[in-house]
Amino acid sequence: MSKLLKERIEQLGLHLPPAPKPAGVYRPILIVGNHLYVSGQGPVLDEDRLMHGRVGSDLNKDEGKEAARQVGLTMLSTIVTHAPESLVIKRVIKVLGMVNAAPDFEHHPYVINGFSELFAEVFGEENGIGVRSAVGMHLPQNIPVEIEAAFLIED
Amino acid sequence: MSKLLKERIEQLGLHLPPAPKPAGVYRPILIVGNHLYVSGQGPVLDEDRLMHGRVGSDLNKDEGKEAARQVGLTMLSTIVTHAPESLVIKRVIKVLGMVNAAPDFEHHPYVINGFSELFAEVFGEENGIGVRSAVGMHLPQNIPVEIEAAFLIED
Amino acid sequence: MSKLLKERIEQLGLHLPPAPKPAGVYRPILIVGNHLYVSGQGPVLDEDRLMHGRVGSDLNKDEGKEAARQVGLTMLSTIVTHAPESLVIKRVIKVLGMVNAAPDFEHHPYVINGFSELFAEVFGEENGIGVRSAVGMHLPQNIPVEIEAAFLIED
Repeated sequence: MSKLLKERIEQLGLHLPPAPKPAGVYRPILIVGNHLYVSGQGPVLDEDRLMHGRVGSDLNKDEGKEAARQVGLTMLSTIVTHAPESLVIKRVIKVLGMVNAAPDFEHHPYVINGFSELFAEVFGEENGIGVRSAVGMHLPQNIPVEIEAAFLIED
Repeated sequence: MSKLLKERIEQLGLHLPPAPKPAGVYRPILIVGNHLYVSGQGPVLDEDRLMHGRVGSDLNKDEGKEAARQVGLTMLSTIVTHAPESLVIKRVIKVLGMVNAAPDFEHHPYVINGFSELFAEVFGEENGIGVRSAVGMHLPQNIPVEIEAAFLIED
Repeated sequence: MSKLLKERIEQLGLHLPPAPKPAGVYRPILIVGNHLYVSGQGPVLDEDRLMHGRVGSDLNKDEGKEAARQVGLTMLSTIVTHAPESLVIKRVIKVLGMVNAAPDFEHHPYVINGFSELFAEVFGEENGIGVRSAVGMHLPQNIPVEIEAAFLIED
């Protein structure tokens, strides 16, 4: 459990959902050298319950943005749960924001901002914002948003 | 040709398809420092023949999983063919599993397990399983699955 | 502003569009160690004007390839604008080519070649060509192509 990150989350009063169990043959996180990689995360609400729906048809863009924030809280939970206590995240490197969007939906970046604003809040404007793509796909279990990310950590 | 990997594949009795020729302006693999990157691979059956069909409409989820395993065999063939003889793969870092899935298909992780279980068999549970996203897209030539991956290698 | 790259672009007589302002909470580029990461770029034509349309329905594959080249020119503009003057790009590592394609479109690699051929021209065949995936998604603002990339740079 990452101690520093846990303290920062408590300081901000964020409520984290439980870390999801892998839904297949993969690790939730992997540390290689000074990089932390996190597998694609969905919006977990509580034990075994995810948000569902397609953005642009079932959900509007603000509901999609809320789902992306929930993906961020889920990713924080995954990191806090699985990373070693000594982990220090230096910065966000890269985010791939995948929106389960209707074919004609146009506002994927707006949706993924729900995730990016949360990480800017937790790690600060300088270190919490990295490069990003925000695009439309079809997602497992009809979740509205899935996001994977890579971080720079203290070696 | 990677000697160690070739021996492991023979030991397991795996039959590899021929390594595909690039379908565009890219390299099949690239080594940068202690990283091996592999371009998106499709499920090659034999010389110039690929598996086809959309998962969730043309193919069911088990046929999709079989296609993902074939992508894995194709990726092993690509690595064995193009990597230097001295290559030693230390571990799988990251897998992006792209399923050509019907819009309402929900089981992308199950499909991509066909690839991940193969790599766990070849490299072991510890080193063969990395982080992953498994999502739905539209794929070239109507192939059912395309997967790209990054590996840690001995420098 | 990257001096060497700017000179190379002038030497080739390439006309770059203005670098786009981020459409969300992300950085256009990020340098971490000897890696340069570039956020997903769309095809900018001029100040506040993008190319639009779905490839395989609104646009044919050659128009799609033209759009991918425009994404390449946009990415060069982004790098030239935001990278430090001393930046030296050693090679292309990885390209993710995302085509806003009709569900039954089959020629994503052909489309993304528009980008890859430009980078081979600018950086040479050896260093301008890396690993790649070229796949179909839905994209923000109905742009035809979006591409993200990673480069090896002099440390």
